[in-house]
Amino acid sequence: MANNPVESLPIIAITSGEPAGIGPDIILSALNEQTFPARLIILADPQLLKDRASTLGLTVDIRTLSHSHEVSAHQQGMISVLPIQQAKQTIAGVLDIANSAYVLETLKHAGEGCLRKEFDAIVTPPVHKGILCETGVHFSGHTEFFQAQCKSPHVVMMLATEAMKVALVTTHLPLKDVSAAITEQSISLVINALNQDLQEKFGITKPKILVCGLNPHAGEDGHLGREEIDVIIPTLDKLRQEGLDLVGPLPADTLFTPKYLNDADCALAMYHDQGLPVLKYSGFGNAVNITLGLPIIRTSVDHGTAIDLAGTGKANNGSLKVAIQHAINMANNAKKFSK
Amino acid sequence: MANNPVESLPIIAITSGEPAGIGPDIILSALNEQTFPARLIILADPQLLKDRASTLGLTVDIRTLSHSHEVSAHQQGMISVLPIQQAKQTIAGVLDIANSAYVLETLKHAGEGCLRKEFDAIVTPPVHKGILCETGVHFSGHTEFFQAQCKSPHVVMMLATEAMKVALVTTHLPLKDVSAAITEQSISLVINALNQDLQEKFGITKPKILVCGLNPHAGEDGHLGREEIDVIIPTLDKLRQEGLDLVGPLPADTLFTPKYLNDADCALAMYHDQGLPVLKYSGFGNAVNITLGLPIIRTSVDHGTAIDLAGTGKANNGSLKVAIQHAINMANNAKKFSK
Repeated sequence: MANNPVESLPIIAITSGEPAGIGPDIILSALNEQTFPARLIILADPQLLKDRASTLGLTVDIRTLSHSHEVSAHQQGMISVLPIQQAKQTIAGVLDIANSAYVLETLKHAGEGCLRKEFDAIVTPPVHKGILCETGVHFSGHTEFFQAQCKSPHVVMMLATEAMKVALVTTHLPLKDVSAAITEQSISLVINALNQDLQEKFGITKPKILVCGLNPHAGEDGHLGREEIDVIIPTLDKLRQEGLDLVGPLPADTLFTPKYLNDADCALAMYHDQGLPVLKYSGFGNAVNITLGLPIIRTSVDHGTAIDLAGTGKANNGSLKVAIQHAINMANNAKKFSK
Repeated sequence: MANNPVESLPIIAITSGEPAGIGPDIILSALNEQTFPARLIILADPQLLKDRASTLGLTVDIRTLSHSHEVSAHQQGMISVLPIQQAKQTIAGVLDIANSAYVLETLKHAGEGCLRKEFDAIVTPPVHKGILCETGVHFSGHTEFFQAQCKSPHVVMMLATEAMKVALVTTHLPLKDVSAAITEQSISLVINALNQDLQEKFGITKPKILVCGLNPHAGEDGHLGREEIDVIIPTLDKLRQEGLDLVGPLPADTLFTPKYLNDADCALAMYHDQGLPVLKYSGFGNAVNITLGLPIIRTSVDHGTAIDLAGTGKANNGSLKVAIQHAINMANNAKKFSK
């Protein structure tokens, strides 16, 4: 730690996620299994973590902070909690609408803390959309929550594994609506946000981005669809003139091979199922979901609440570990970039 | 070979593909690097193979057969050729329209030989669609060629690597037309053909098939598209009542993970770029393309003619080797099944 005086370590806020799900489990086990080079603050009810640690038989050092500046460098087994109280004690595996406000409060606190630079990044375990919406609030996802909180006009969904990074032009759209959503504007907004965040948050001076076509074989010169010719190619050409390093449009089943991936910083898929099956296959459960285009840094696990595994000790903390490590790296890069 | 009397070894016909491309190169190098447990017959001009072997500096034993029944068990370095004459001597790397009729003749001969049981399977290196079409014939692909020759109403495209098999409901369609092509009829035809060939040509008694949804998250209960609810789920339910073992519709980014793949025989994607990026990523250049639904067995490499690599010694024969081995396995399974 000699090279890492505490003040230089980024402060990472980690929300508890849905308390009845595996969020608390994977936080406890991940922070108990290794030391992360950061100051980690869990936004949660300390009692929730104590109860879950007891259920899991984990001996961890749960410290309650009265302010975030009290947090020290993480050490294996140390759980520093900035307390936010649940309405009701949680039973692992049992969703309770009474605690929905608690879940939203942890997110609100995390976002606000990041915006006022109290935290350098947020890491989010999974929440349960259904139980949040039952309270009458509209909650469509973490991404949209932080987008609204940060008043960001455009965000970009990126997933990363050790093998690759994949960003998406369109995300949760019915397949039949994808073609109409591929426009000069949508492509340009996403590529510009992606390029900027690869520079500022990933420390890549001149990002090289591989871009998929929309159609099979990237349209095969118009024989299998015209969007490449009419929209994608002209848009990429304009962006290249502005100095961006873009390769494509490439056939998606050619792009995701070592020949291309090894020489690039990120792939851009036109839609969800063009990019994410290969990304998740490449990650074997250790993918991380990163929201770009926000003024804050936010990473997330790529899995759900797995209510049935909460408290069993069977939850896999791999994705959370990678999400924390990505948040740390991105926070360090952002600090360097802003200097 | 004691357990493999020559007569029991399947006879595999291998066409030369585009003579100016890497087809001859990869045939020569693959058959020179290992012994395949089959009787292999190359449908080609012997002079083409002699010239290319000389260019590549390969010492191989090129034997010209006067009839297919003369072929003996393959041994490393043995190239048995059933001669079909080129119109002109080929120069590696130089396309020549004069030899287009020759290319089509090798395919015609291969298909006819399979239909009359002279061959047990066909393996095809790549052809060059452009140079074939320049002669005025309409040639849209090997698959369509053999489909027409066999008078098969429906064929299914499947790709396979060591890690997985992926079949497609729709293949070379513009993305915007995919949704309309997902019907009870198209899904049922593909699944029935796939199930039958997994039994008859892959020796799987009761195939377990994983089926992708069409939309992201398989439609998420209708929130991200209705085709799952309106078409896919009712169709799979009907097929299950007929005894098929189908899992899904599953989100594509969940299906292609070990949890599901390890327990199934094949995945079915609704469209090209949903299934093939992950398939090709899993295969690292060693994927094989298999046409199902034909009365004959046909496997193919999954790459193009790579005209610029012909004669250089740099062509990768991995896909051809896997295509030959798959054809052998399928031919052996088909013999067992028909007994």
